[in-house]
Amino acid sequence: MKKINIGIVGIGRMGKIHLDNIYNHVKDVEVVAIVDKNLEQIRESIGGYKVKYVLDSYEDMLNISEIDTVVISSPTDTHTEYIEMAAKSGKQIFSEKPLDLDLARAKDTLKTVEQANVKLMVAFQRRFDVEFKKIKESVDAGKVGSIHILKITSRDPAPPPIEFIKRSGGLFLDMAIHDFDMARFITGSEVVEVYSRGAALIDDEIGKAGDIDTAVTTLTFQNGAYAVIDNSRKAAYGYDQRLEVFGSEGMIYNDNKIPDTHRYYNKDGVHGSLPMYFFLERYKPSYLEEIKVFFKTLREGSEMPVTGWDAIKAIEIAVAAKRSQEENKPVQI
Amino acid sequence: MKKINIGIVGIGRMGKIHLDNIYNHVKDVEVVAIVDKNLEQIRESIGGYKVKYVLDSYEDMLNISEIDTVVISSPTDTHTEYIEMAAKSGKQIFSEKPLDLDLARAKDTLKTVEQANVKLMVAFQRRFDVEFKKIKESVDAGKVGSIHILKITSRDPAPPPIEFIKRSGGLFLDMAIHDFDMARFITGSEVVEVYSRGAALIDDEIGKAGDIDTAVTTLTFQNGAYAVIDNSRKAAYGYDQRLEVFGSEGMIYNDNKIPDTHRYYNKDGVHGSLPMYFFLERYKPSYLEEIKVFFKTLREGSEMPVTGWDAIKAIEIAVAAKRSQEENKPVQI
Amino acid sequence: MKKINIGIVGIGRMGKIHLDNIYNHVKDVEVVAIVDKNLEQIRESIGGYKVKYVLDSYEDMLNISEIDTVVISSPTDTHTEYIEMAAKSGKQIFSEKPLDLDLARAKDTLKTVEQANVKLMVAFQRRFDVEFKKIKESVDAGKVGSIHILKITSRDPAPPPIEFIKRSGGLFLDMAIHDFDMARFITGSEVVEVYSRGAALIDDEIGKAGDIDTAVTTLTFQNGAYAVIDNSRKAAYGYDQRLEVFGSEGMIYNDNKIPDTHRYYNKDGVHGSLPMYFFLERYKPSYLEEIKVFFKTLREGSEMPVTGWDAIKAIEIAVAAKRSQEENKPVQI
Amino acid sequence: MKKINIGIVGIGRMGKIHLDNIYNHVKDVEVVAIVDKNLEQIRESIGGYKVKYVLDSYEDMLNISEIDTVVISSPTDTHTEYIEMAAKSGKQIFSEKPLDLDLARAKDTLKTVEQANVKLMVAFQRRFDVEFKKIKESVDAGKVGSIHILKITSRDPAPPPIEFIKRSGGLFLDMAIHDFDMARFITGSEVVEVYSRGAALIDDEIGKAGDIDTAVTTLTFQNGAYAVIDNSRKAAYGYDQRLEVFGSEGMIYNDNKIPDTHRYYNKDGVHGSLPMYFFLERYKPSYLEEIKVFFKTLREGSEMPVTGWDAIKAIEIAVAAKRSQEENKPVQI
Repeated sequence: MKKINIGIVGIGRMGKIHLDNIYNHVKDVEVVAIVDKNLEQIRESIGGYKVKYVLDSYEDMLNISEIDTVVISSPTDTHTEYIEMAAKSGKQIFSEKPLDLDLARAKDTLKTVEQANVKLMVAFQRRFDVEFKKIKESVDAGKVGSIHILKITSRDPAPPPIEFIKRSGGLFLDMAIHDFDMARFITGSEVVEVYSRGAALIDDEIGKAGDIDTAVTTLTFQNGAYAVIDNSRKAAYGYDQRLEVFGSEGMIYNDNKIPDTHRYYNKDGVHGSLPMYFFLERYKPSYLEEIKVFFKTLREGSEMPVTGWDAIKAIEIAVAAKRSQEENKPVQI
Repeated sequence: MKKINIGIVGIGRMGKIHLDNIYNHVKDVEVVAIVDKNLEQIRESIGGYKVKYVLDSYEDMLNISEIDTVVISSPTDTHTEYIEMAAKSGKQIFSEKPLDLDLARAKDTLKTVEQANVKLMVAFQRRFDVEFKKIKESVDAGKVGSIHILKITSRDPAPPPIEFIKRSGGLFLDMAIHDFDMARFITGSEVVEVYSRGAALIDDEIGKAGDIDTAVTTLTFQNGAYAVIDNSRKAAYGYDQRLEVFGSEGMIYNDNKIPDTHRYYNKDGVHGSLPMYFFLERYKPSYLEEIKVFFKTLREGSEMPVTGWDAIKAIEIAVAAKRSQEENKPVQI
Repeated sequence: MKKINIGIVGIGRMGKIHLDNIYNHVKDVEVVAIVDKNLEQIRESIGGYKVKYVLDSYEDMLNISEIDTVVISSPTDTHTEYIEMAAKSGKQIFSEKPLDLDLARAKDTLKTVEQANVKLMVAFQRRFDVEFKKIKESVDAGKVGSIHILKITSRDPAPPPIEFIKRSGGLFLDMAIHDFDMARFITGSEVVEVYSRGAALIDDEIGKAGDIDTAVTTLTFQNGAYAVIDNSRKAAYGYDQRLEVFGSEGMIYNDNKIPDTHRYYNKDGVHGSLPMYFFLERYKPSYLEEIKVFFKTLREGSEMPVTGWDAIKAIEIAVAAKRSQEENKPVQI
Repeated sequence: MKKINIGIVGIGRMGKIHLDNIYNHVKDVEVVAIVDKNLEQIRESIGGYKVKYVLDSYEDMLNISEIDTVVISSPTDTHTEYIEMAAKSGKQIFSEKPLDLDLARAKDTLKTVEQANVKLMVAFQRRFDVEFKKIKESVDAGKVGSIHILKITSRDPAPPPIEFIKRSGGLFLDMAIHDFDMARFITGSEVVEVYSRGAALIDDEIGKAGDIDTAVTTLTFQNGAYAVIDNSRKAAYGYDQRLEVFGSEGMIYNDNKIPDTHRYYNKDGVHGSLPMYFFLERYKPSYLEEIKVFFKTLREGSEMPVTGWDAIKAIEIAVAAKRSQEENKPVQI
């Protein structure tokens, strides 16, 4: 099989995950270059791996002709720029989400990608989670019939630092955007209306920063289905990621993933383990699966399973949700 | 203990349940009279029981001085009239819900009851279900902290006959009203805003009758909590009655009641029993508990656990939900 | 339907349960007489019920010609005598288990019953539990194929008083006998060998009384299946009654019955309710079902679902288990 | 950290697992040599990895002085010989189980290891399974109090080929030996008596080969606890690996690991996924964990978590179980 040579830009938490996964688990893909402002961090992340180029200039990397493909895991505000540059250099692209906090900007970027005729996959890793894939397969196989109601519970174990929140675009663009993508993925239909209600119930600081930490959202889909999504920045018991699909023929849902299945009975009751604490544990296998699928699709030349268009759509819903929450009225898309 | 003598008006499905429960399981309460247009049906329902008066006139029953208390299980459109008549006769009152489909009418009735200084309990039997009581107790004990999100799933196994639906007041007043009461019961707070989305996804006939069969509702409470309720007139797998409370300190939820706990493993998967089919099975113990509590409270002279005021509040929410769904906008209460 | 007139002998805990069940839930059966040494206790138990004869002589009751049937819920050491007397008087018989602690004596009694040509049902109420009935039905429907391994967990929440234990016949005859009957019921086959291991691990007093409080038993069945039964007189978390059938085509098991299905998540883990505490709660519906089935079978004239022969077989296994445990060797039956 | 140089002997299924795990997940350990009769298979297994020596002579490998440690994953009948040779060469040893089918031979080998003063860890990977580790930790923390009853369910999805069975030493030495080790691990006590019952219920060919495919075993421990183990070579629904500990203060158990947690409700019932099919999936993380722990312990110079002595003890119990089953009597150890 022809080897794919890649460059990774941004070697923070997600960049490191992609590096490890590609190096250890993806055959015939070689990490040729890593770019980061912080060269020291690159060297630390590389450890025993062999990587040809260690760079602090993204442009330099794009000029390396043996590199076919870039993995963009740099900060959100660089995504569109880096994607456009890569596209113009004729590189295939895997990018972290979101494309951008600004919808128009994201759309422009997508045009550039289309004109350059390169592939772009956006990293909505939850689509590759075994739980949600199982539900999607069952839905597609007709097991629940027509979807009437989709329910998503999506709660983090703890809010990010307030400084992060201020730059994050807010709960809908930073956090719920995954759930909006998931709702589209499962229903296979487009959202036509959004109604969101929310407030800062957990931390006043979040409210002062103009954001919310708790939200409930109703989505109306083109095909007639409804989705209800509830989000919280802080679940005392950890990361809560559940989805339920109710349709004309039945219902399917998943439970949270747990580290072990033990049940302990004593005089005080029955006790079990909490869900895996956060996304790095819960979605660990999904991060591997998404990058594998990306390279597999690249080789096959078929359409990417999560496109720039999907990313745009998720932003659109998030923006509408934000407006709906702020103005307290349903917003059409 | 002093005996309480009662009369039952309406010996349909619910009247028969109350008769059986009182006769077999409630001590020192005697069913002295039963009133129904259909005398034959009374006699059939009585069977081996001993009941002094079998009447087709409610007025005649109210004139029997040895009767202290009436149980009203006649059709919905008689509730307010029968309650008012009973109140004016100085009888204590247990009435099936809803008070009335018309909010103003219900309020008038409540005034009459208050002026007559008699007790009135309205039969929201779900408050006496062991599952929901357990959750309520845990919430009141502070186990989930402040409530942020309440979720109610409430789905029937099959729609009632279309003729019933036409007279029912619609999904919100006929079906979701139980969930609105439950939301108030659990949160211990009042609803300030309602947003409902819904459609006839199951049966066109229901849509033609001007009603819906599927709905998702967001409630905003005075204390800042949100509730999301999803309703369906038809769950292929039976009656679905689940509730989840998420708060600052944790989460509590119930699962559906099942007839047996078996798990069967074969080459095709793991299989279990469906939930109890419908409300008569699921809430059988609740019907007994509510009537026991009614008589206990009556003897003690304390405040009824479900008052006319509770019934009014539930109607208010249902009316707002209906308007919200029809006009597609949040409605303040 | 022709009324059946019955007399109950022994109005302790079980007698009271039968009285309540028959009075409230079994049609066309009238409790004509109750016999107990303690006349005061009879009167208390009767409460508001109407019972013609309150007697302290069993013989007197047998002489009442309008009585067709006796329910024997007196102490164990009276069972065989009372059954024989009833049989000779031509009465139909429902008796609590065990027939007797002495196998030969029990067999003699059975002969008397057969000669008198009356019906006898012995009260192994667990056969009427919805959980075990569901498993039995699935086994009979071939869902697990040929049975290879049957597992029974049977643990009490607390040992009975030491005085009771001394008269009880020991763990195998008093407690495990229910499990031996269940094993026969489920497999539909006879036990050919027993091996039991056990000790007094919970309470030294039990050991000093010559009994054990913990046991594990292996049964070998004629059809080749094995059963493993574990018993304990004290489970810190309450009553534990589980059964698993493993066969060539699959496995089926039940879980314990719980008062409610709640799951509570907080920072310390996931918590749920303990099983129903003891047999009166767990098997409450079974006690009703068994007596209903008894009277139904009596009317139909068909064979009793639990015969004297079943009772004998259970005693045989218990006696063998006791010997096996004492001599530490497999015992053939 | 000082690098450890290792040689692997035997590159079949288990050897390949160890190679992958060490190469990708264990730091500062280098696979310097691989030995196998089949050089071609070595080369295939190596793939893109870098391995200095590819050999068909175990002796040659032992002569490579830079190698500190050997991983023995060759066929069972070579284990004792290879261990002894490694010990005499002063190499540290990780060996697959069992040491040998012959108890005396295994004991001799252990002596040689002790005289050579090298470390030996035997690969009972289940001790490193998160489920069983969680139970062990809870037991050690006193959560169940004194252990009274331990229950192990251990069933394979399908029997191995009949040719394998003939050389395997039989169900007890080949399959149940893992459960015997687990019982010692959890109780922390030694077995003093074994009673096994079993037969060929699944496949006549297994019976004709002098082996059994179904067994139930009772173990009595020095500390008074009992264990019941049930084994089957064929569970229609896949691999069944469950353990329950019941003690004076409570009970703890695990459920099988499942690929996803979905529950699907339709008109026919509730359905879920089967357990992971077999040991390669179920114990995949355990294989990694055990080899990590081995190297960690080696570096620390502390005692191995699973010693040769543990291996001997498991064989002893298996041999006793076999004799007990053949002679149908309890066997003392």
